[in-house]
Amino acid sequence: MAQKHFARSVPAPVSAIDADASRRGFLKRAALLGSAALAPGARVAHGAALDGPASPVVDAGANLPPNVPQWNRTLGAPILSSPYGVPSTYEANIVRRESPGLTRTPYSSVAFTPLQNLFGIITPSGLHFERHHAGIPDVHPGEHRLMIHGLCRAPRIFTMDDVMRYPSVSRIHFIECGANSGMEWGNVAVPTVQYTHGMLGCSEWTGVPLATLLDEVGYDKLRGKFILAEGADGAALTRTIPIEFVLDDVLVCYGQNGEMLRPEQGYPLRLVVPGVQGVSSVKWLRRLKIGDTPFNTREESLHYVDMMPGGVHRQYTWIQEAKSVITSPSGGMTLVGRGYHAITGLAWSGRGKVRAVDVSTDGGRNWRRATLQSPVLDKALTRFRIDWQWDGGPALLQSRVVDDTGFVQPAIRQLRAVRGTRSIYHNNAIQTWRVEASGAVSNVQVG
Amino acid sequence: MAQKHFARSVPAPVSAIDADASRRGFLKRAALLGSAALAPGARVAHGAALDGPASPVVDAGANLPPNVPQWNRTLGAPILSSPYGVPSTYEANIVRRESPGLTRTPYSSVAFTPLQNLFGIITPSGLHFERHHAGIPDVHPGEHRLMIHGLCRAPRIFTMDDVMRYPSVSRIHFIECGANSGMEWGNVAVPTVQYTHGMLGCSEWTGVPLATLLDEVGYDKLRGKFILAEGADGAALTRTIPIEFVLDDVLVCYGQNGEMLRPEQGYPLRLVVPGVQGVSSVKWLRRLKIGDTPFNTREESLHYVDMMPGGVHRQYTWIQEAKSVITSPSGGMTLVGRGYHAITGLAWSGRGKVRAVDVSTDGGRNWRRATLQSPVLDKALTRFRIDWQWDGGPALLQSRVVDDTGFVQPAIRQLRAVRGTRSIYHNNAIQTWRVEASGAVSNVQVG
Repeated sequence: MAQKHFARSVPAPVSAIDADASRRGFLKRAALLGSAALAPGARVAHGAALDGPASPVVDAGANLPPNVPQWNRTLGAPILSSPYGVPSTYEANIVRRESPGLTRTPYSSVAFTPLQNLFGIITPSGLHFERHHAGIPDVHPGEHRLMIHGLCRAPRIFTMDDVMRYPSVSRIHFIECGANSGMEWGNVAVPTVQYTHGMLGCSEWTGVPLATLLDEVGYDKLRGKFILAEGADGAALTRTIPIEFVLDDVLVCYGQNGEMLRPEQGYPLRLVVPGVQGVSSVKWLRRLKIGDTPFNTREESLHYVDMMPGGVHRQYTWIQEAKSVITSPSGGMTLVGRGYHAITGLAWSGRGKVRAVDVSTDGGRNWRRATLQSPVLDKALTRFRIDWQWDGGPALLQSRVVDDTGFVQPAIRQLRAVRGTRSIYHNNAIQTWRVEASGAVSNVQVG
Repeated sequence: MAQKHFARSVPAPVSAIDADASRRGFLKRAALLGSAALAPGARVAHGAALDGPASPVVDAGANLPPNVPQWNRTLGAPILSSPYGVPSTYEANIVRRESPGLTRTPYSSVAFTPLQNLFGIITPSGLHFERHHAGIPDVHPGEHRLMIHGLCRAPRIFTMDDVMRYPSVSRIHFIECGANSGMEWGNVAVPTVQYTHGMLGCSEWTGVPLATLLDEVGYDKLRGKFILAEGADGAALTRTIPIEFVLDDVLVCYGQNGEMLRPEQGYPLRLVVPGVQGVSSVKWLRRLKIGDTPFNTREESLHYVDMMPGGVHRQYTWIQEAKSVITSPSGGMTLVGRGYHAITGLAWSGRGKVRAVDVSTDGGRNWRRATLQSPVLDKALTRFRIDWQWDGGPALLQSRVVDDTGFVQPAIRQLRAVRGTRSIYHNNAIQTWRVEASGAVSNVQVG
C-alpha cells in the first residue's frame, strides 16, 4: 500500500501544528502546569448530543460537517481486509528514505528511520533503518546454516531448527549505525532528524544468548578472546567482537518486535551486540569463529574507523556513547502559534541506562530537567518530554543526556577538539534545532 | 505480500520441531542445567573455513549444499525494496485468521493473533487481533473530531491536531477481548492457541491521559462518576467506563508500537482502558460524555455480559482477571524427539503485575516455578519460560499465574462451579495442552 504509492518520493513536509483552534485550552493547561498566565477566551461552541447511535454533532463556527460523518452511518471494510495489517493510507508518507546522493548504489546504501513521526521507544519493524553492503539477500530459512568454529572442542553447524530449540530471551535494545549523524562532522547540516539521527532503531529482540552456543561448542575459555562474525550476504561482511561483550549480553537473534526478523534486518538470523555500533550486529549470520586476537579483516580495516587529526585511523571503536536528540519540534517542522508546545525526544547510551536528560531552549545557557518515560531500560532508547511555553521569538532547542556511568553528552566543539572534522563515525554531539519567529525549525550548529 | 497469497486460507500446520540433528547438544545443555544425564555421542562433522569472504563450508553427512550458498555469492535486492517493510515471504502463513463459522458476517467478526508464532511481549501491529461490530471505517484524520461533554463546565470538540498537541505518555499494555477463550466454556475445544487465546495483544500505546482532557473541559468532580465512550464506526459502539479507571490510567491514544494506529485498531483515535475487557477500549473514538450513573446503552445490555447459572445476566464485568497460557508447545504442534524442550508462554493480569507463573507437565499434580522475562510491567503481557525434559510419554502441560494482588488463576471446574457453562465472556481458566507419545499436542480440558 504505502510502499507502492510513495516509494522514493521526495520527503513530505512534516505536518505543521495548528494551534489556532485550541490556543485557549493550551494556555489554560499551561497555567495548570504553572508556567503561563491564564488567557480568557470564549468557550468553543458545541451541540448537544443524545446517547443513541448516530446522534447529530454540530460545532458552530468550526470546520465540521453539519451532521454525523459518513463513516458513522455505513458499514466499513470487512475484517481481515489485511490478514497482515498495514498502516493507514493517510500515513503513506511516513516511510524510510534514502538521503539523495549519499551513496553511489542502492546495493550499498542507507535508508533512514522517520524519527520525527514516531512515538514511544519501539521502532516499528517496517520503519527500522536499513544499511546494506551488498543488498538484501533472499535467504531460505530451511537451507540457512550457522557454523561456530575456531578455538573450541566441538565445532558445529546449526540449522535454524537447532538454534530455535535453545532457551531464548527477549530484550529491548537500540541499534545505532556508527555513522549516524556522520554528516554533521563537517557542518553539512541536513534538514531533518530523519537524516541527522535516523540510522537508529529500538526493538524487542528475541534469540539465544551467544554464550549458550559457545558453551555448546566448548569454547576455549583461556585463549578465546575475540569472535569473528560473518554474514551470508554478498559482502560476506565480517566484524570482530570482544568475548567480554559476548558473555555479557550478545544475542543470536531470530525475532524482532514479536515476529521473525524482516529480510532487510537479517532474516532468518542475526547478531545483536547491544550498545555497540550497528555494523557489529551482523545480519544474515552464517559463521562465528573464536580466536585469540582481533581478526583485522579487510572490511574492519577500511570501514567504521575514525579518521583522527593528523590522518591516523582509530580502529575498533565499539561502544556507541551517550547521545540524545529532540525529535519534535525538529528540522522541517513549523510551529504555528506561540504558547504551549511539548518538546520530546530520545536518549540512549551504549554503556547502560539513561540517568537524566536536560533540555535548553536558549542554546545551552539554561537547562531544565526533562521527564523520562518509564521503563528506562539498559542500552535501549528512552523517551523524554518537557513542557515549553514558546514566546514567539527565536529559540535554540538542545537536549543533553547523562548516562548511568556519569558520561555527559558533549558539544560538537568538544568533540572536534579531539577528533577534528574529518571523521564519519561516532558523532554523539548535542544537536541544535533553531526556531525562527516564523515558527520554522531548522538544523544549525551552535558551540 | 503475505496478505495477498494467504488471505482466508485454512490454518497452516505449525512447524514441527526437528530434534534429530541436535539431540546431543540439547541433552548436554540439559545436563548443564542440572535436569538430565549427559548423553555421550559423536561430534558433528564440520569443515574448516578460512577467514576470507565466500569460504566453502562443508558439513559431512548433513543436508548442506556443498559450497557457499547462492545468496553469499551475489548482490541481493536494493535498499528500500520496501520503503515500509513487510515480513519475509517465507513467513507468509503467519497472519491473523478468522475461526470458520464463528460469526455470521465479516463486518461483525473476529480475527485472531497467531500467538504460537510470536516471541517476547510486543505484538506486531500487523498481527494484533481484530474485533469489529460494523467493519473498519475509513476515517479521515483531518475531518475526525472528538467531543467531550456532559457534566462539565466547558464542553468542547477537539481536532486531531488539538489532541496531539497535549502532553502525551507511552505505556506498554495488553488488550484482551472479554470473549477470549469463550469457546472453552462449553468444552468446545478449538485446536490451537491462536483460537483459544488469540483475542489478545500487547503494544506500546501513546496518547493523552484522558484525565488531562477532562481537566480541560472542567468536569464535575462531585457528580461525574462515569464516562460514556462512543465510536465513529457504523455500530456507533458505546461503553460505560467508571471515572476511577479514567483518573488512574486511561489513555486517548493515537499511537501503537511507535507509529499511528492502524485502521483496524481505531485510526486515528481510540481509548485504551488498561486491564479492562477490550470492548471498552473504544476504537475510532468520537465522543466522551460525563455522567453520574452507568449509561446502560443497548450495546452494553446485550453484549459482553455474563450469563450466570439460573439465567441471570451479570453486567459491567470490567476487569480481565489474571490469566496465562503456554504458547509453545501448544495445540497443533508436534514434538519430534524426547529430551530438552523449552516451554514458554504469556501471563497477564488486569489488576496489575504478574508475580509468578508455575508450570506443570503432569496435569497439575506437580508445579515448578517459571522464569519471568523482565521488565515485568503493569497490565502488560509477561513472557515466562521453563526448561523441560520430555521423557517421550504422555504429558499434560499447564501454566498458572499469580498476580501481585495474590489472585491465583483458577481451574475450569472452579470457574464453572460459580459461573456454569453458558457464559461466553471472562474465562481465565488454566489451559491444558496434551502431549501424546507421538509428540502430537492438542487442546484438552482437565479438572
